[in-house]
Amino acid sequence: RIMRPDDANIAGNVHGGTILKMIEEAGAIISTRHCNSQAGEPCVAALARVERTDFLSPVCIGEVANVSAEITYTSRHSVEVQVNVLSENILTGAKKVTNKATLWYVPLSLKNVNKVLEVPPIQYARKEQEDEGKKRYEEQKLDRLETKQRNGDMIFPVINAEPHTVGYSQSSLIHLVGPSDCTLLGFVHGGVTMKLMDEVAGIVAARHCKTNIVTASVDAINFHEKIKKGSIITISGRMTFTSNKSMEIEVFVDADPFFNDARGPYRAVSAFFTYVSLSKDGKPLPVPQLLTETEDEKRRFEEGKGRYLQTKAKRQAQMQQAAQQ
Amino acid sequence: RIMRPDDANIAGNVHGGTILKMIEEAGAIISTRHCNSQAGEPCVAALARVERTDFLSPVCIGEVANVSAEITYTSRHSVEVQVNVLSENILTGAKKVTNKATLWYVPLSLKNVNKVLEVPPIQYARKEQEDEGKKRYEEQKLDRLETKQRNGDMIFPVINAEPHTVGYSQSSLIHLVGPSDCTLLGFVHGGVTMKLMDEVAGIVAARHCKTNIVTASVDAINFHEKIKKGSIITISGRMTFTSNKSMEIEVFVDADPFFNDARGPYRAVSAFFTYVSLSKDGKPLPVPQLLTETEDEKRRFEEGKGRYLQTKAKRQAQMQQAAQQ
Amino acid sequence: RIMRPDDANIAGNVHGGTILKMIEEAGAIISTRHCNSQAGEPCVAALARVERTDFLSPVCIGEVANVSAEITYTSRHSVEVQVNVLSENILTGAKKVTNKATLWYVPLSLKNVNKVLEVPPIQYARKEQEDEGKKRYEEQKLDRLETKQRNGDMIFPVINAEPHTVGYSQSSLIHLVGPSDCTLLGFVHGGVTMKLMDEVAGIVAARHCKTNIVTASVDAINFHEKIKKGSIITISGRMTFTSNKSMEIEVFVDADPFFNDARGPYRAVSAFFTYVSLSKDGKPLPVPQLLTETEDEKRRFEEGKGRYLQTKAKRQAQMQQAAQQ
Repeated sequence: RIMRPDDANIAGNVHGGTILKMIEEAGAIISTRHCNSQAGEPCVAALARVERTDFLSPVCIGEVANVSAEITYTSRHSVEVQVNVLSENILTGAKKVTNKATLWYVPLSLKNVNKVLEVPPIQYARKEQEDEGKKRYEEQKLDRLETKQRNGDMIFPVINAEPHTVGYSQSSLIHLVGPSDCTLLGFVHGGVTMKLMDEVAGIVAARHCKTNIVTASVDAINFHEKIKKGSIITISGRMTFTSNKSMEIEVFVDADPFFNDARGPYRAVSAFFTYVSLSKDGKPLPVPQLLTETEDEKRRFEEGKGRYLQTKAKRQAQMQQAAQQ
Repeated sequence: RIMRPDDANIAGNVHGGTILKMIEEAGAIISTRHCNSQAGEPCVAALARVERTDFLSPVCIGEVANVSAEITYTSRHSVEVQVNVLSENILTGAKKVTNKATLWYVPLSLKNVNKVLEVPPIQYARKEQEDEGKKRYEEQKLDRLETKQRNGDMIFPVINAEPHTVGYSQSSLIHLVGPSDCTLLGFVHGGVTMKLMDEVAGIVAARHCKTNIVTASVDAINFHEKIKKGSIITISGRMTFTSNKSMEIEVFVDADPFFNDARGPYRAVSAFFTYVSLSKDGKPLPVPQLLTETEDEKRRFEEGKGRYLQTKAKRQAQMQQAAQQ
Repeated sequence: RIMRPDDANIAGNVHGGTILKMIEEAGAIISTRHCNSQAGEPCVAALARVERTDFLSPVCIGEVANVSAEITYTSRHSVEVQVNVLSENILTGAKKVTNKATLWYVPLSLKNVNKVLEVPPIQYARKEQEDEGKKRYEEQKLDRLETKQRNGDMIFPVINAEPHTVGYSQSSLIHLVGPSDCTLLGFVHGGVTMKLMDEVAGIVAARHCKTNIVTASVDAINFHEKIKKGSIITISGRMTFTSNKSMEIEVFVDADPFFNDARGPYRAVSAFFTYVSLSKDGKPLPVPQLLTETEDEKRRFEEGKGRYLQTKAKRQAQMQQAAQQ
């Protein structure tokens, strides 16, 4: 679809969250369609996980985003979807790859939302495709378990914080879940949640560096808990790490199903977003260093540095590999 | 209401689809109100058909659109509504007629959506008004039957198409029908469908001529089949004909009610949109000629030419008639 | 326009904020039109103040809201607009008065946004109308000055608050101001701000009583400071007072024009919203009493009680007056 002014920041770059929402909608459509392709209980595919996603180039207002989705692996109860986004300038005809994302969906019965149905298997062109898919399936399963354990952390507000400290830029947003946010099952679309997360992360980044910022990447996101229509969700973000030219922001989503449920608020999702600051002609700008004060902030900064160096090393290895071929 | 940046293209012209959506909402309100004006089974008026609509002058951001609707004819089971749109520049006070549209609605029972109710008759000021209305009613009935038969065609994607061929500009968009898209009966508003159709047609036109484009007219649209909440709809458009300064685009809407229904996807609506390309000062620009390749494309081009010449002849006849009066 | 599921809470009642936004849009249209009715510098009317507004009856999904606006007084530099909202059930034809609101607008030059232009005077049918209008004008001017002074207060977050305390239900929301939120001058529409304020107040009320809630009234709101496109706004709400069947919530709007401006965040608007809790059949329910802890909370509770008793007395006086006539 054509990108509109409301999809973009003041500099005309489309919000990463808008693109994540489109990716998720495409993934939900193709996997729901696949899971209903055989006669049986009707179902809706629910987002379980998004793999790490890089934003390769910014999209601008007036460009057309072409989203294509393909099912690349099926396990007994889950579907892996690969979604590609091309941005097309329809005036010049120029096309650029914007994103390549991998998402995992699980089919939930329309009659009983707690029942996970079986996924019809797909045919693979080559045996290796199936084996590689299986490997990806096992890897993400492990990672899901891991994040489930680290989910207890909270963001506490800070009064009168100094510029460039963690407390200064941290932000939170509350949202009442309305009908348009939800699937047929009455649960929030994963894409809606990701869009709100990107909104908060973007505000944290903008408050820190007070310049035009864009989403550079999103770490893998696991959706452990569904969020029901009518819940109040609180999305909070804080900066965890800065390199010379990038900022890492941790975002939490807490849901309060305040009048359906006695159990009180719970952590539904968490993720790391990486932002860069861009000059008017689209060049990356230096970022003010994050000032850490408490022990926890220093620890999170080191952990963020670890993730940053790991990603950098991985990218260099890929580039060397590509150069050798 | 005031036109906002999101209602418009880059050049600041409001999308034809936004205006079609407002027209349809006004028509739905007045005909639902009329059909419930006598004690009896409550009902909701569903859009059955929109007559050919010309966009007489473009509307810009910041202008106010004034929409007025009037019931002009009632048959036993249908209501004809005339809707006029005036655009008003509230800074200068200037007003222009933007559209005059004619829509047909059918009252469906709230209790049983497959039951068409009777329409309370209106009073005519003069006998001729009733006779002319009856004539229009019979004409549209014939036309509805005809389009029902030609609805089988499909759009297949083309890889590596050359500029200005049909395959190069053809486009499609997938949308999951949400609650805000629907009437009280749980079916998509006709206006929502028309807005999406205009969006796809606009992308086809922009891809073809790579300039700023605006909707010039929409051919009669028949809504043969309702689309249920939760369906996946695919809207596809391809160019069928170009004159020196206009482009005709055929748009199909296919609905897949994947979980309600065993019958699979079906064609819900189809229509022809005409676009023109505008220069910065609002003058029509020449349009690159459409390159037809297959026999089908050549046939559709000739059919489009027929419609174009017919419309042109009709307009000239009207102008002569007006000049003689 | 027809009320959609997205305009309403789970019980189907349309949000007060949606109605306030429609009221403000109607007021902005009529006053901008009036102020440009004489040749002169083009201008846009900006909302300066909304008088206390009562929500007389809830509006439901599927109903049509009819909004009508009339200019009732003009001073040299301001326009008073009276806006009435009727909700109409188009199935039964039943109409109810939903709101009667009074708004004050000021014409700002399109060329120089800091210049307030002169308002063309209106003609009054009777001399008393002008005198009464002048009295209202003087009263609101005094009240505007008064609120300007009390605007320094802040909401500080509370950790691990007990149910029914002020800290437990207080909430805040951040929003990045996009192009669709703004007028032609690039400042946020007053209606957009009021909708966000109602959203936060509604979440505070829902968190306090954990039942279905609706807006009962909004106290006079003064818009002292414009908010520029691209600003980050923080809307915060806290409960100040509860009677047996109503809750009063104070809402602050703080704007941070983080990359336009050196002066940092400032208080743009503040207001009191009153909510009631409704049972499934629309009857008011008892509300849990607010537990006040600090001296400030107790003081604000007493002030809220004062406003509550004053409003109650005024309403009784009006009813007696009406009974005597």
